[in-house]
Amino acid sequence: MSPPALLDLAAVFVFALTGALVASRALLDLVGFLFVACLTAVGGGTVRDLLLDRAPVFWVQAPHFVLLASAAAVLVFFTAHFLESRYRVLLWLDAVALSVAVAAGVAATIGTGHGPVIVTLMGVITGCFGGLMRDVVCNEVPLVLKAGELYVTAAFAGAIAAQLAFTLTDMPWLPLAACMAVTFALRAGSIRLGWRLQAYKPRPPRHK
Amino acid sequence: MSPPALLDLAAVFVFALTGALVASRALLDLVGFLFVACLTAVGGGTVRDLLLDRAPVFWVQAPHFVLLASAAAVLVFFTAHFLESRYRVLLWLDAVALSVAVAAGVAATIGTGHGPVIVTLMGVITGCFGGLMRDVVCNEVPLVLKAGELYVTAAFAGAIAAQLAFTLTDMPWLPLAACMAVTFALRAGSIRLGWRLQAYKPRPPRHK
Amino acid sequence: MSPPALLDLAAVFVFALTGALVASRALLDLVGFLFVACLTAVGGGTVRDLLLDRAPVFWVQAPHFVLLASAAAVLVFFTAHFLESRYRVLLWLDAVALSVAVAAGVAATIGTGHGPVIVTLMGVITGCFGGLMRDVVCNEVPLVLKAGELYVTAAFAGAIAAQLAFTLTDMPWLPLAACMAVTFALRAGSIRLGWRLQAYKPRPPRHK
Repeated sequence: MSPPALLDLAAVFVFALTGALVASRALLDLVGFLFVACLTAVGGGTVRDLLLDRAPVFWVQAPHFVLLASAAAVLVFFTAHFLESRYRVLLWLDAVALSVAVAAGVAATIGTGHGPVIVTLMGVITGCFGGLMRDVVCNEVPLVLKAGELYVTAAFAGAIAAQLAFTLTDMPWLPLAACMAVTFALRAGSIRLGWRLQAYKPRPPRHK
Repeated sequence: MSPPALLDLAAVFVFALTGALVASRALLDLVGFLFVACLTAVGGGTVRDLLLDRAPVFWVQAPHFVLLASAAAVLVFFTAHFLESRYRVLLWLDAVALSVAVAAGVAATIGTGHGPVIVTLMGVITGCFGGLMRDVVCNEVPLVLKAGELYVTAAFAGAIAAQLAFTLTDMPWLPLAACMAVTFALRAGSIRLGWRLQAYKPRPPRHK
Repeated sequence: MSPPALLDLAAVFVFALTGALVASRALLDLVGFLFVACLTAVGGGTVRDLLLDRAPVFWVQAPHFVLLASAAAVLVFFTAHFLESRYRVLLWLDAVALSVAVAAGVAATIGTGHGPVIVTLMGVITGCFGGLMRDVVCNEVPLVLKAGELYVTAAFAGAIAAQLAFTLTDMPWLPLAACMAVTFALRAGSIRLGWRLQAYKPRPPRHK
């Protein structure tokens, strides 16, 4: 099994866990869990494949992705009440899923003749759009847009790190590992240590 | 006219009625009615066609779908104030539209070489995504996600019933009728008799 | 550079400005500005290209669109606090962007063998969907759906004006200029002079 396929599998599984956790916060039923988990799990990769015109999209060719996401939903439905803080687990799983999905997006795009701008964007899109759909559909404030948090920023930095590493080495796994490490480190620093970007201020104090 | 084409027509018309009813609840103007009606009417089938890479999507090839949805919007704009309860009519029309659209989605996918997982999913997607877009754009709580209601569940059961029936008979209409009957019966039971799935409970009471 | 390409560039730039202004109202950080600006700028044209099966979509072939949108986001991030009323500037820039994008959508579709219904719809979709995504993601009331405002109506009228003009002249720029003039005039009349359509009323007063 090729690295991109393995990364896709891992991203699908972890994103499905986060989707099911958001479903649990919305007090949905089991089928609602399945729906949100599958949407979150395959959303980002689906947008990527549609934009790149890879037809049909990855999970239509290989239905086991959807079955894996469904298994994650069932798992969360029957075990989430054991968790101390579902929101905290959600945040950290989302960070893992983001890191893996950005690497999967870069891996899927880098051999296809597109330049660095598009490879970077496809990494960011694969990483961010599943969670964005999850949050819009469930009416949560999108994690993607929480002011100041390193989220799209982390995805962006990871995608660029991967491409730098690809120019330095021939080993296929190293750049993807670098991508995951950079994305996760920035996101974890933001969750845990409060690293953040300056949010826009409408009227900064000037020349008193 | 082939069965899938007829079903698509019927689903488009009834979903357009529901879109226009939601527009009436949001107090939009006539053009808003047209916009929401068309989005609802063709949304599910459009997502299905994009995912399956059927190009171009069904209503781009055959613009009469959009004209039909527009006629439904105009009809509702001038007659909705005669209704006793627009929400009740909306619920029931949505149930009809769901049943027909699931059958249309199954019919459009079943001859294309995809396996049962994808056929089922395309039925569910064709059935559910138009209404989901309608509710997200108009800021209603998505019917799809109302906890406990049989909605995605009904679509799912209908899509599976259709495929079981296809293995038992050669008549093309019978499985689609079975699909519509199963989807509508479950959805109607949920609306009328309160059939529902257990919603997720954060901390079920345990061994006191 | 062909007229459609120039129009696409202009629409991308002005829509990116509006996206960044909405990001400033949501107090996002710089990366949030980039994200919303890019989504708004390429959203409408992306939906159009996916529906028409033009592969890959316009900005994947030509990454300078994304770079241009990013430049607009950075510009707004560092200058928006000089504006007296960001909402007023947003409204007017959005009117300009709508006019240009409808013309771009018509220009991109009219030579491809599609009939007038689809050409009109692609103009409306190119014009309206970027702003719709911007508003849904940032949780603003979609401008598209503000009851009574001439918005989709203006796009619609502009797209039809362009096609009438195409039957009357061979000059490629004239119909596109007519499209922009009609769309902008109707939208401006709605913003400035209060031109509007009658919103739906649940129970009009009858025969007292």
